[in-house]
Amino acid sequence: MHEAVFFVVPIGSIVALLFAFIQAKRVLKFPEGTEIMKKISRAVQEGANAYLKRQYSGVGLFFIVMFVLLGVMAFAGFLTPFVPFAFITGGFFSGLSGFIGMKIATASNARTAAAAQESLNRGLRVAFSSGTVMGFTVIGLGLLDLSLWFFLLKYVFYANIEEVEQITKISQAMLTFGMGASSMALFARVGGGIFTKAADVGADLVGKVEAGIPEDDPRNPAVIADNVGDNVGDVAGMGADLYESYVGSIIATIALAVSAGYNFEGAAVPLIMATVGAVASIIGTFFVRCSEHADQKHLLAALRKGTYISSLLIIIASYPVIYFILGPEHIGVWVAIISGLITGVLIGFFTEYFTSDTYKPTQNLSSSSLTGPATIIIGGIALGMFSTLIPVVIVGISILVSFYAAGGLSSFGEGLYGVGISAVGMLSTLGITLATDAYGPVADNAGGIAEMAHLPQKVRERTDALDSLGNTTAATGKGFAIGSAALTALALIVAYIDEITLKDPNFEFDLSITNPPVLIGLFIGAMLPFLFSSMTMSAVGRAAQSIVKEVRRQFKEIKGLMEGKAEADYAACVDICTRGAQKEMIAPALTGIVAPVLVGLILGVNGVAGMLAGAMITGFVLAVMMANSGGAWDNAKKYIEKGKYGGKGSEAHKAAVVGDTVGDPFKDTSGPSINILIKLLSMVSIVFAGLILKYSLLDVLFK
Amino acid sequence: MHEAVFFVVPIGSIVALLFAFIQAKRVLKFPEGTEIMKKISRAVQEGANAYLKRQYSGVGLFFIVMFVLLGVMAFAGFLTPFVPFAFITGGFFSGLSGFIGMKIATASNARTAAAAQESLNRGLRVAFSSGTVMGFTVIGLGLLDLSLWFFLLKYVFYANIEEVEQITKISQAMLTFGMGASSMALFARVGGGIFTKAADVGADLVGKVEAGIPEDDPRNPAVIADNVGDNVGDVAGMGADLYESYVGSIIATIALAVSAGYNFEGAAVPLIMATVGAVASIIGTFFVRCSEHADQKHLLAALRKGTYISSLLIIIASYPVIYFILGPEHIGVWVAIISGLITGVLIGFFTEYFTSDTYKPTQNLSSSSLTGPATIIIGGIALGMFSTLIPVVIVGISILVSFYAAGGLSSFGEGLYGVGISAVGMLSTLGITLATDAYGPVADNAGGIAEMAHLPQKVRERTDALDSLGNTTAATGKGFAIGSAALTALALIVAYIDEITLKDPNFEFDLSITNPPVLIGLFIGAMLPFLFSSMTMSAVGRAAQSIVKEVRRQFKEIKGLMEGKAEADYAACVDICTRGAQKEMIAPALTGIVAPVLVGLILGVNGVAGMLAGAMITGFVLAVMMANSGGAWDNAKKYIEKGKYGGKGSEAHKAAVVGDTVGDPFKDTSGPSINILIKLLSMVSIVFAGLILKYSLLDVLFK
Repeated sequence: MHEAVFFVVPIGSIVALLFAFIQAKRVLKFPEGTEIMKKISRAVQEGANAYLKRQYSGVGLFFIVMFVLLGVMAFAGFLTPFVPFAFITGGFFSGLSGFIGMKIATASNARTAAAAQESLNRGLRVAFSSGTVMGFTVIGLGLLDLSLWFFLLKYVFYANIEEVEQITKISQAMLTFGMGASSMALFARVGGGIFTKAADVGADLVGKVEAGIPEDDPRNPAVIADNVGDNVGDVAGMGADLYESYVGSIIATIALAVSAGYNFEGAAVPLIMATVGAVASIIGTFFVRCSEHADQKHLLAALRKGTYISSLLIIIASYPVIYFILGPEHIGVWVAIISGLITGVLIGFFTEYFTSDTYKPTQNLSSSSLTGPATIIIGGIALGMFSTLIPVVIVGISILVSFYAAGGLSSFGEGLYGVGISAVGMLSTLGITLATDAYGPVADNAGGIAEMAHLPQKVRERTDALDSLGNTTAATGKGFAIGSAALTALALIVAYIDEITLKDPNFEFDLSITNPPVLIGLFIGAMLPFLFSSMTMSAVGRAAQSIVKEVRRQFKEIKGLMEGKAEADYAACVDICTRGAQKEMIAPALTGIVAPVLVGLILGVNGVAGMLAGAMITGFVLAVMMANSGGAWDNAKKYIEKGKYGGKGSEAHKAAVVGDTVGDPFKDTSGPSINILIKLLSMVSIVFAGLILKYSLLDVLFK
Repeated sequence: MHEAVFFVVPIGSIVALLFAFIQAKRVLKFPEGTEIMKKISRAVQEGANAYLKRQYSGVGLFFIVMFVLLGVMAFAGFLTPFVPFAFITGGFFSGLSGFIGMKIATASNARTAAAAQESLNRGLRVAFSSGTVMGFTVIGLGLLDLSLWFFLLKYVFYANIEEVEQITKISQAMLTFGMGASSMALFARVGGGIFTKAADVGADLVGKVEAGIPEDDPRNPAVIADNVGDNVGDVAGMGADLYESYVGSIIATIALAVSAGYNFEGAAVPLIMATVGAVASIIGTFFVRCSEHADQKHLLAALRKGTYISSLLIIIASYPVIYFILGPEHIGVWVAIISGLITGVLIGFFTEYFTSDTYKPTQNLSSSSLTGPATIIIGGIALGMFSTLIPVVIVGISILVSFYAAGGLSSFGEGLYGVGISAVGMLSTLGITLATDAYGPVADNAGGIAEMAHLPQKVRERTDALDSLGNTTAATGKGFAIGSAALTALALIVAYIDEITLKDPNFEFDLSITNPPVLIGLFIGAMLPFLFSSMTMSAVGRAAQSIVKEVRRQFKEIKGLMEGKAEADYAACVDICTRGAQKEMIAPALTGIVAPVLVGLILGVNGVAGMLAGAMITGFVLAVMMANSGGAWDNAKKYIEKGKYGGKGSEAHKAAVVGDTVGDPFKDTSGPSINILIKLLSMVSIVFAGLILKYSLLDVLFK
């Protein structure tokens, strides 16, 4: 291929960013509603800003320490000098994606509520447009940074070296970039997840359960913190997360291009594919429209239509990309792309099947609330565990199809490259899928504002309809994140092995599952997602306890609060959540960075590989289970609120609320962080490969 | 070694069985108490007999089908002709272990209650003696069957063939014997687990929560079913389970002896070691005694003393065993035995640390009940997940130590043999550890009888103290079962690979974790314990629902029941539990048999190996988590019942009851079945190895 073709990537990234900018302008033109609505929205914005400011300064410190550490290691010859810088930029852009997404989301909540006063469809338009800003910012920034590094390395720093070595060095620097992005994403997901669920659980426990006031009631001091949480967790956290997934899948595939022997073309394909996807996603967004009198079902169909059209465009457009760039003999790679796209859609569908109250599983779960909280908890865990069967089978088929289509046993490297590219294919529609995903929290916030600003009941009903739709699309989004993570993690394990071979061509691998270090690594890897989930769930519990105490204090000490005569001290709750999240996010995030180094220093290279595989498989299964259990509990509760089994206030409803509360950290804190964890483990392993090759206890003792 | 030495094994087995017989005689001499106590005990016996009769006839049908199936396969040349018979006998003896244990347990419950009228210590003696009957029946039968098959094969069927081939063929037949034992154990554990928890949950939900009558109240129609459940689940199920663990670890090590090149000596060592352990355990039981005025702490110390003395005796006695049989150059095997023993003790200790209310974790969990059921559920799951860290590290160290002590990288086969023998070492104290474990359900039943027979409050307090001690020892027992399962499963995976090599010496393995079939196998394997747990938990839920309906019906329809004037129809509840358990145990148990065959037919040999490894690591972690979450919830509730946080009847207590109910299927149905599942998967894979070598979709398509 002519190298000039590659310039479509930065151009595509600018198109995506421009599109995001235009959409942002459009959203901001909508009116914000009444003074009180503006005031509430401002409070949410301030809270979210305060949180992010604190988070970024805390995480900044971490990045400085890591920068110095990596600098020392580079100085000692274990790493190339670009590594510390690549690490920093990865973190920066991941954070920036979350930041921009949150800015637009907090600017859109009151606007969505105001628009919903007119019609459901108008509300959807505002919320969805704000979602597109987020979606295209993430992919635009991702493509920008990746192509920037690619150009710098190829045409400036490594311009004068031979092509194979050049691509190798580029992929190494890119992987560190990925490690930065993953670190940032993990902090953002975990911190945001702790914040949002501590506020949510805390507000519910005292407000709904003890004081008996409705959700989003302005008398509840934690109500603003709850709304801030939606933005810092489900928006900023998710933005950083999916930025990481997006660039991670591309970087991993670039790394595999090297071992597949594809050289420059192979490394360019994932970037060009992603660019094709960006354009296809932009076109897709124009199909998300429906009549003014559409109901919820039509809205979902409209959202789906956009995604399906984008997917179809990608399938068509990627054929010539593969045909002309890799050559007709590699057309199997095209099959891998299709396989990835279908896998994403299927995982999304089955996630919905297990968590939506329009299907049997959640309806049955709902009925188990009739015999109390214990049975709905058992039922929800059983549902989540059962729901892992189909995604595992789908991912298994996807790996097989893309591996054998793109290479097979005789061309092992090319086959694995196919697996990597199927993840890129799955995420190529990210612009539009993320848009349909990110609009959910905006609708949720809009509902809160409608309630607090005492807008007519009809408005709240509309925002509830949007919110409920958002639950479905959020479940699909999580399916994408975890599905692509399994494929990307696999690609990264291979990249790890390549990295070792590169550093020590004589290294004798024994990656057999019966080799004790591999085996022990597998055990440790299987345990890590459990340990990590335990830490994040406990963190939510502790932070929620602080909120419970604060809300109780305010109810007791602020006179006239319950009568609506005095105002609650919202900022205090926001502050407690912020502090709690900052403190609590450190240990779980560090686990992801320390574990591979520690395991490596003890068990050596083979042990690390085992750990990565163990974490990947168990992490995938556990993440699916937690997300689906949580989603099903949430919707089982909503199903009762629609009037089933006695409706709101019944014993069944109380039991379902317990289920929902347990599900909160499952689906919004621990579950969605696991996909980042398994990729971060791999990237850290790759970056520290040189160190582990040199120092490892087992090797010292038994060689 | 002189082959005559081997005769210690059948002699040891007869000594163990004789000891069990004498203990049984002793227990049966104790008086059964009043007429009403006898009547209740009789009802429990009848219920348990009815259940086992039904179960054995159902399982019998399964065994007949399998016998025919294996017979056809043997006829077609895939298996040796002994396989069907070995399979049947394994199942028979596993079932027999459970049956005898249950017989003595149901005969001891009223006797324990009667003895507890006199003193706590006397109650302990009766209950513990009944436990020893179970413990030594299991190991006696295990050693008897193993040595019987060993002798038959070595001196009759394969008398005239060369030694290496002889040992190989013996180990193959033994593995089928193990598959029979595992199948039976899985049915017994799952069926018994469903019965006991359906009865328990059902009785609690209507009795305690709805009708507000105390636990074990004779007015509750499910009360007899609840007591029957303790016997069919915690006694018969556990007996079959640990029989399987015991023979499984020995069989797996015999199989490894072949690949380690040890021949007859290597195959004899695990059996002789187990015999040494049997004798040491008998000696240990004589140290379980304490003064008449001992408190609970002293009782636990007394039980521990017995186990520690047995362990010490084994360590001393196994030195000459290894030295003279394997030779001084293999003394590293002795280190592996010690490592196994220590691993068992350490896992037991940390299990206790995480689940006993004398330590921080369960105390903290207890306090989280103050903010309602949701927080104690989240806390319990987080606790269970966190508690997986230490057992994984301990097992990891244990594998490393035994591998490197017994062989290391240069003598790979011998190293793996060391891992196998460390599992044998861990289980060599089974006679006494199982005794301290099996007495728990007897004490639990005794408490029920004391309540129903209106014995003085003091008696109930004493049986409660015994029961609570039983919870601790049961937790330790589960730690042993799962800890040894990890090591045994590993040995069995190696045995699987050996079996394939034996059947096709040219088979090219690629067991690397990056080989797609292995990788997909890993994913499927990681999912299986989740799927299996989902099935067993749902089964408990469904069966409990039927009990709830029946108890409600009886409360409504039987006039005078609540006033104590009419008698409940206990048999109806027993019958419902029996039917429910029979129906519900089929699907999960079949999963363990069908999965390896199906995965093999699609992914081939490498895929099966991946699946086994995935199931082993995830199964281990999940089993530890479920057992510890469940145990901690149970004891957190008991901690409140001792008067903390408002005591019985408080809101905190209600929340803790929810936790305990969720924990019931965790710790008594799903959790303890997983260790059987992971071994059954391996054994089925080994038995069907010939079939999979010949027919596998991937091989057909891509070779």
